[in-house]
Amino acid sequence: MSNLSSLDLSSLNHQMLQPGTKGLALTKPLQQQDIANQHWNVLNADTSFPVAVLKQSALQHNLQWMKQFCASMQVVLAPHGKTTMSPQLFDMQLKNGAWGITLATVNQTLIAHRFGVKRVLLANQLINRSDTQAILALMQADPEFAFFALTDSLDGVARMSAQVQASGLNRPLPLLVELGFAGGRTGCRSQADALEVARAIHQSPYLQLAGIEGYEGLLVGKHRDQDLVAVKAFINDLITLTKQADAERLFGSENILLSAGGSAYFDLVGRGFEHALQLSRPVTAILRSGCYVTHDHGFYHHLLHEMQARESAVDVDNLRPALEVWSMVQSRPEPDLAILTMGKRDASYDIDLPFPVQTHRPGNASAPIDLPVGCKIEKMNDQHAYMRLPKDSEICKTLQVGDLITCGISHPCTTFDKWPVILVVDDNYQVQSAINTFF
Amino acid sequence: MSNLSSLDLSSLNHQMLQPGTKGLALTKPLQQQDIANQHWNVLNADTSFPVAVLKQSALQHNLQWMKQFCASMQVVLAPHGKTTMSPQLFDMQLKNGAWGITLATVNQTLIAHRFGVKRVLLANQLINRSDTQAILALMQADPEFAFFALTDSLDGVARMSAQVQASGLNRPLPLLVELGFAGGRTGCRSQADALEVARAIHQSPYLQLAGIEGYEGLLVGKHRDQDLVAVKAFINDLITLTKQADAERLFGSENILLSAGGSAYFDLVGRGFEHALQLSRPVTAILRSGCYVTHDHGFYHHLLHEMQARESAVDVDNLRPALEVWSMVQSRPEPDLAILTMGKRDASYDIDLPFPVQTHRPGNASAPIDLPVGCKIEKMNDQHAYMRLPKDSEICKTLQVGDLITCGISHPCTTFDKWPVILVVDDNYQVQSAINTFF
Repeated sequence: MSNLSSLDLSSLNHQMLQPGTKGLALTKPLQQQDIANQHWNVLNADTSFPVAVLKQSALQHNLQWMKQFCASMQVVLAPHGKTTMSPQLFDMQLKNGAWGITLATVNQTLIAHRFGVKRVLLANQLINRSDTQAILALMQADPEFAFFALTDSLDGVARMSAQVQASGLNRPLPLLVELGFAGGRTGCRSQADALEVARAIHQSPYLQLAGIEGYEGLLVGKHRDQDLVAVKAFINDLITLTKQADAERLFGSENILLSAGGSAYFDLVGRGFEHALQLSRPVTAILRSGCYVTHDHGFYHHLLHEMQARESAVDVDNLRPALEVWSMVQSRPEPDLAILTMGKRDASYDIDLPFPVQTHRPGNASAPIDLPVGCKIEKMNDQHAYMRLPKDSEICKTLQVGDLITCGISHPCTTFDKWPVILVVDDNYQVQSAINTFF
Repeated sequence: MSNLSSLDLSSLNHQMLQPGTKGLALTKPLQQQDIANQHWNVLNADTSFPVAVLKQSALQHNLQWMKQFCASMQVVLAPHGKTTMSPQLFDMQLKNGAWGITLATVNQTLIAHRFGVKRVLLANQLINRSDTQAILALMQADPEFAFFALTDSLDGVARMSAQVQASGLNRPLPLLVELGFAGGRTGCRSQADALEVARAIHQSPYLQLAGIEGYEGLLVGKHRDQDLVAVKAFINDLITLTKQADAERLFGSENILLSAGGSAYFDLVGRGFEHALQLSRPVTAILRSGCYVTHDHGFYHHLLHEMQARESAVDVDNLRPALEVWSMVQSRPEPDLAILTMGKRDASYDIDLPFPVQTHRPGNASAPIDLPVGCKIEKMNDQHAYMRLPKDSEICKTLQVGDLITCGISHPCTTFDKWPVILVVDDNYQVQSAINTFF
């Protein structure tokens, strides 16, 4: 395994896509690398509908922008890979300077490693024996594989210590102590508890304290002013804890990792971590934002607007929505209703329903046109969407069965997991290539 | 293609499952048929967590029960395959007498055909040229493949007629006219409109009127009494329309297909269709219920309770929940809170959040124990669930990191699509085999 020095993406290019693959209209198997040669254009309705597409220009823009943002704040990026679970996107992120990939589960880690990812921050705990054994076996088999996990309890530390001991792994397992907050998710609820956990790690010969971690991204409430105060206080708590653990000389890693940062407040985390701490060892400050790579038309779009208000380096155009789901009008059963070939199996619905943005009639040479304000997806079933049109509007008269509708989404994570293959398109919706996801 | 006379499931048994496959804790690739030889038991935590399991006994029971139910009402079953998209479950359904498989999209149809399904009712319309071409090519290549689609507009009929003509297909495309209702989804909004569509199909040499279809399953409102009145009226409307179309001699198929029936009111559809119509040709009454096969702990569980009140042949134990998602307590950060290794990527959340049912400590020889009333999943993130425990209850003291929690789900469709591989277990949670899904 140790000879996997770069992402082994060629196996994906060489795989045969079977008829039935969502988004493609295949009559026979097609090698993935031959997709560009099909000269498919979404606007010509050459694909199947629904189809999920990634706009190449937006993707490249976002990758570049985040790289510069991190550089300007002297933080590194370990983008959360659970968002996309796409080896090709991991590769693009690493080529744009990412320090490693953050992941949420052991199985996600095994997939990333299979495609050559050599540094993983598991933003979660190793609890289950079977899962832990799989990770420890990988660490044993691949000395180049750097793996870090979280913990938030003495119970957890004891479990991991015993499991590493039983495995016979030839190096200690590096851990970050997770600090949380009352009403939050995982994470120690006090600095005192967190320090106790850090000491327990330090005391185990099978474990290594590698850093301190927190996740401020859950502090998204109804009153943003209060949220921001809480986020800043939490970042300070992380820094305080790191200083305390260093003062007690509990860290055992070469660098002290200090990590936070979802996709909502990464500016505040960046600013909070910006001035490298003066500790006994070098500090690596790690952002974990994952959704920046595709951004969206909803939840993160609004959060970026807010970020703009507090951070002069941020513009609303800094991140561009790269992910769209296209569907077709399949029925116009009532004057102000269109039923689309898209449903809960195709687009996120956990934060907002998809946002219909543009329409296009296949065969029409002109560009897609913006839908009027008031067009709204008001419901989705498993495989259908109900688009309500503004009563008596022009679009009520013109929208036909067979017309295309493009929707932006809110929360990329829950759209990515619905598409094993996503088509990459240029600005004219000409299909260039495909990426794969592994959920 | 015409030599595929039975489901080609052996390719699935022979496939290599890769490390990283959700629900499995693999350190190296494993041939799927070797799963039973691993002697995994969920209660011993031999799998990865979360893991989705199908209880074999419940599955077999449900298959048998529905077979008898349909026989007793003289209707046939074309179970909606979009629920599971699992070739192994399609095979079980066909072996238990299913007339064919209902599907929602062209790509789902291509997958079913790839695994040998020879009769598909597409409960949707063929609109897009590329998708339609894929189906017509399949019909041309495989003379044994019987395919039926819906339509609800003259536009749709004209599009399909032109596409079949252009394809040179050597047989007409069989269609069912979809009747809908005001405020519903697809489907003609009046008998008059539906008859017009039926006449247009009859007039096209490239199309064949094969039946009448409706979907009463959307009539689930707040007042069940009103819903039931509406469902019965709608079933009568379907029958009236069928009689009218027959009186005009519009049907061109050997049998007249009359289809309705989701998973909420299939008893009413069965009773409504029970007394075979006396028409000019034999009538095949087709139920399309899909969720019966695994049933659930939520939405359909409640609907079955209601069905029991109106149908003496139905008992609440008639269908048994077969699908469970097991996860592990990964953190106990507050006295009445447990964070589970399960999230939106793992279990349905569109109708209800999952229902925690039992807990088990791996290694404990006794059976899982019921969770006390009041244990509740109150939130899920992408990869985490928040289980609230009744304040000051015994479980607050005893539940530990590493304990297992089994959850029932509400709405099987949106759990199936989160699991490429689902483990089949016996009543002791010993893993027997696996099924695959294709989404």
